[in-house]
Amino acid sequence: MYQLASRTSEAGSIVEVDGIRIGEGFTVIAGPCAVEDELQIEAAAKGVAAAGGALLRGGAYKPRTSPYSFQGLGAPAVELIAQAGRRHGLPPVVEALSIEQLPLLAEHVGMIQIGARNMQNFALIQAAARTGKPLLLKRGPAATLDELLYAAEYALLEGNRSVVLCERGVRGFDSHTRNLFDLAGALRLKELTHLPVIVDPSHATGRRSLVVPLTLAAAAAGLDGAIIEVHPEPARARCDAAQAIDLPEFSDLMARLAVFAPSKVASAGCR
Amino acid sequence: MYQLASRTSEAGSIVEVDGIRIGEGFTVIAGPCAVEDELQIEAAAKGVAAAGGALLRGGAYKPRTSPYSFQGLGAPAVELIAQAGRRHGLPPVVEALSIEQLPLLAEHVGMIQIGARNMQNFALIQAAARTGKPLLLKRGPAATLDELLYAAEYALLEGNRSVVLCERGVRGFDSHTRNLFDLAGALRLKELTHLPVIVDPSHATGRRSLVVPLTLAAAAAGLDGAIIEVHPEPARARCDAAQAIDLPEFSDLMARLAVFAPSKVASAGCR
Amino acid sequence: MYQLASRTSEAGSIVEVDGIRIGEGFTVIAGPCAVEDELQIEAAAKGVAAAGGALLRGGAYKPRTSPYSFQGLGAPAVELIAQAGRRHGLPPVVEALSIEQLPLLAEHVGMIQIGARNMQNFALIQAAARTGKPLLLKRGPAATLDELLYAAEYALLEGNRSVVLCERGVRGFDSHTRNLFDLAGALRLKELTHLPVIVDPSHATGRRSLVVPLTLAAAAAGLDGAIIEVHPEPARARCDAAQAIDLPEFSDLMARLAVFAPSKVASAGCR
Amino acid sequence: MYQLASRTSEAGSIVEVDGIRIGEGFTVIAGPCAVEDELQIEAAAKGVAAAGGALLRGGAYKPRTSPYSFQGLGAPAVELIAQAGRRHGLPPVVEALSIEQLPLLAEHVGMIQIGARNMQNFALIQAAARTGKPLLLKRGPAATLDELLYAAEYALLEGNRSVVLCERGVRGFDSHTRNLFDLAGALRLKELTHLPVIVDPSHATGRRSLVVPLTLAAAAAGLDGAIIEVHPEPARARCDAAQAIDLPEFSDLMARLAVFAPSKVASAGCR
Repeated sequence: MYQLASRTSEAGSIVEVDGIRIGEGFTVIAGPCAVEDELQIEAAAKGVAAAGGALLRGGAYKPRTSPYSFQGLGAPAVELIAQAGRRHGLPPVVEALSIEQLPLLAEHVGMIQIGARNMQNFALIQAAARTGKPLLLKRGPAATLDELLYAAEYALLEGNRSVVLCERGVRGFDSHTRNLFDLAGALRLKELTHLPVIVDPSHATGRRSLVVPLTLAAAAAGLDGAIIEVHPEPARARCDAAQAIDLPEFSDLMARLAVFAPSKVASAGCR
Repeated sequence: MYQLASRTSEAGSIVEVDGIRIGEGFTVIAGPCAVEDELQIEAAAKGVAAAGGALLRGGAYKPRTSPYSFQGLGAPAVELIAQAGRRHGLPPVVEALSIEQLPLLAEHVGMIQIGARNMQNFALIQAAARTGKPLLLKRGPAATLDELLYAAEYALLEGNRSVVLCERGVRGFDSHTRNLFDLAGALRLKELTHLPVIVDPSHATGRRSLVVPLTLAAAAAGLDGAIIEVHPEPARARCDAAQAIDLPEFSDLMARLAVFAPSKVASAGCR
Repeated sequence: MYQLASRTSEAGSIVEVDGIRIGEGFTVIAGPCAVEDELQIEAAAKGVAAAGGALLRGGAYKPRTSPYSFQGLGAPAVELIAQAGRRHGLPPVVEALSIEQLPLLAEHVGMIQIGARNMQNFALIQAAARTGKPLLLKRGPAATLDELLYAAEYALLEGNRSVVLCERGVRGFDSHTRNLFDLAGALRLKELTHLPVIVDPSHATGRRSLVVPLTLAAAAAGLDGAIIEVHPEPARARCDAAQAIDLPEFSDLMARLAVFAPSKVASAGCR
Repeated sequence: MYQLASRTSEAGSIVEVDGIRIGEGFTVIAGPCAVEDELQIEAAAKGVAAAGGALLRGGAYKPRTSPYSFQGLGAPAVELIAQAGRRHGLPPVVEALSIEQLPLLAEHVGMIQIGARNMQNFALIQAAARTGKPLLLKRGPAATLDELLYAAEYALLEGNRSVVLCERGVRGFDSHTRNLFDLAGALRLKELTHLPVIVDPSHATGRRSLVVPLTLAAAAAGLDGAIIEVHPEPARARCDAAQAIDLPEFSDLMARLAVFAPSKVASAGCR
């Protein structure tokens, strides 16, 4: 059984990313699917910061199902998001696809994401953990909760205790949503582990209209946060346009989330 | 395509059950898995009413996977729950397993439930619809949203417009939860249909500790209600003991739900 | 645990349908999705008999997802298939959707089918069992093997030991096939139960081109038979046209199946 | 859409591995889950060769769900399997878990496997393809057929046309089998692509008793081969003991497969 990942006491862990404490209150990570250019990431960062987001997401290396899809800008995107994040006080969260990308990411970003496709790419997880950076580990679409916790254990065993887990939908059978958002699984995770657990309603559903209510649901249920795709102009997004919300929607969401903040501790889903 | 079930305007339908309006605010149906005896259902009804529940659930005919499991008390249970409901002002919701049970149910209960196992038992749905009673139609564990709406259409075509849909978990692969609770699917349903949509976190997860946070999540997301297993003494429940919450927990849940009531209309998950 | 359905010895049960022994060799049931008219069922019966099929399938009451789809001809179809079957020596297999249809079916058909949608409609299963007719019980798309065996147990407990199980695909996530054909599950069933186990590659995949190879696979693996949709003119079929094979294809399949007959006993998948 | 992987003509591709032609007849790859020591891999190789197996499998680097499980012997195992393969004329097939393992594998093995967990580890696929070695690409447990073909396209675009696809079970909901073996999906793959398609019944089911009948099924259905876990002493296997067959069972399987060889071309599942 996993050991370092197991919950052994009432108190959950706090993962700190450049001063942002994940595991305390409801933390919102927001930004575009991919960094597309300087203006786009600057507009996104500005809007996210103004609305009260805590961290800035944005893909530099995109793991695309098809080799013919936009693969991200690569290294230049890492620097663009780092600059935008710095200007607006938002630590960047960027996904790593291979070990060779880790040094650049470790230098520039606040948190390194291991995506769902690589949840059992243990070599990558171990190398990412060894950078010492906080990690955001996403659940794979066919992964059980135990498998996710074992994957986290690979990172924890490297001596890096800053691991945040993310539910982003498992493979389902209904084409109305891209994946099947497993909110109950995320809550159950909180019972099994002390690590913070957040959700990604954007990738879980692939549907803009569901992002706001599901984020409110996650907050009401007592989870630790959400990572949300926000784009200054969703219609022009180079990837995942159908799931990105725009800045006014994001701002409205943040205002509505404020309701849940005070009752956060009391409404913890795990007991 | 389904027609009568389709959403064609902003306004959703209200389904009225003996004066209770489902589709307005967040309606809570609560009670034991099965009616076990007069004392049990009376204690449950009293506690549910005191906490603010709106309808009383309780099985008379139980569709059990195994023929060797407790099958419910049958007809006597219908009368017991009807009496308990009357004493406490809670319309009873009872599941029908076959056409021959419908006349007795139609006489005594406020709402007839078609369970997940019978979601495509169209003969039963049609006959239940013809009683004129409001129906609670649960989604089958392998049913797509469209299949659920087509099943509802079978009822609506009989001239009975009082149909409430209920998400209660689809078949998933992780043994930590009994089924995979599809909250995003329930929200998507609200976009597709004008019918009220509620959730059943008890059957969806089979896990007591998840019932409260998931009910809060459903309310925050803007759904229309929940059906919850509450037992005066969960440890002695003759079925599904692991998922029933007790009366103090239920009372606490109802108090916490109050937060969401005012913002209910504004937080509608469908747009 | 199920008891009457459990395998307790090496020997499997034989279910006899008007002289056809299912559980011995590889039995093929074939015919159209629905009985459409006298000419169609006559042509189908003639072709199926000529090619060596053992029983004749054909729907009279069709459980259709949508109430707007063709629902079958009803009672007249029962008589048409009975006549065609009699002319060609093929006992008919017809699905029952409700208890009230059972007397007519019991009078005219060789075997009553309980479809996947009704696998846990226990009232129907019990009533069908009480007719004394052999039953073909199909696995529901979300049913575990144990749930299927418990459903069979409901029939066996009525004193009817003539139950044949049928795998017809479980809910999967890939749209290339309608369902996910669980051949390994069917083989595992043979280890768990003494009842004969057949497959329905037509409904499992919804794809004509896969029916022949999957039937050969089931025979090679040592299963007890298959139920196959065959239509004299697939392009004109009133339901499930995409999955029906035509009579020449069926004839070719039967010829190729002959290879497996001798080694049938030796290649039993269960030990 | 994928292009290089698409089937554009009747004829399928042949992938040649040190003289063995995969895509012609039914090719069997066999051997232990992991190389454990010299005696074990020698005994396995000897038995596999004697029975008529074509290639030798054996893990050097094991991708284990838990970091506390046996992780394989690493580099020494690569050399051991290479020697055993050479002694018995069996090209070795070994899985790569990270890019840095590729040079050693390219030097010593006949075919490099990309495992299910890394099916969308595109950096690894591309680097493996660039070694020029034939690749065995396994389908991930949540991967659609199209996603598998897109993953193959990443390899093909590197100029390496020697890619064999392998179905090894998708995530299912029944605990009787480890995964859900998707034979119909494997057959559908043959219609979509010209690449050879084999199956892995050992990992798909996790159950020794199902390996033989499912391999026979795959051969009867017209697929291109199977990769099977065979261990000289399954009870002592250091990983996946429950799914390994022993050498006499393997020898018996090979004898029974001989029946299908002549009809191989005629029984192609795709048309």
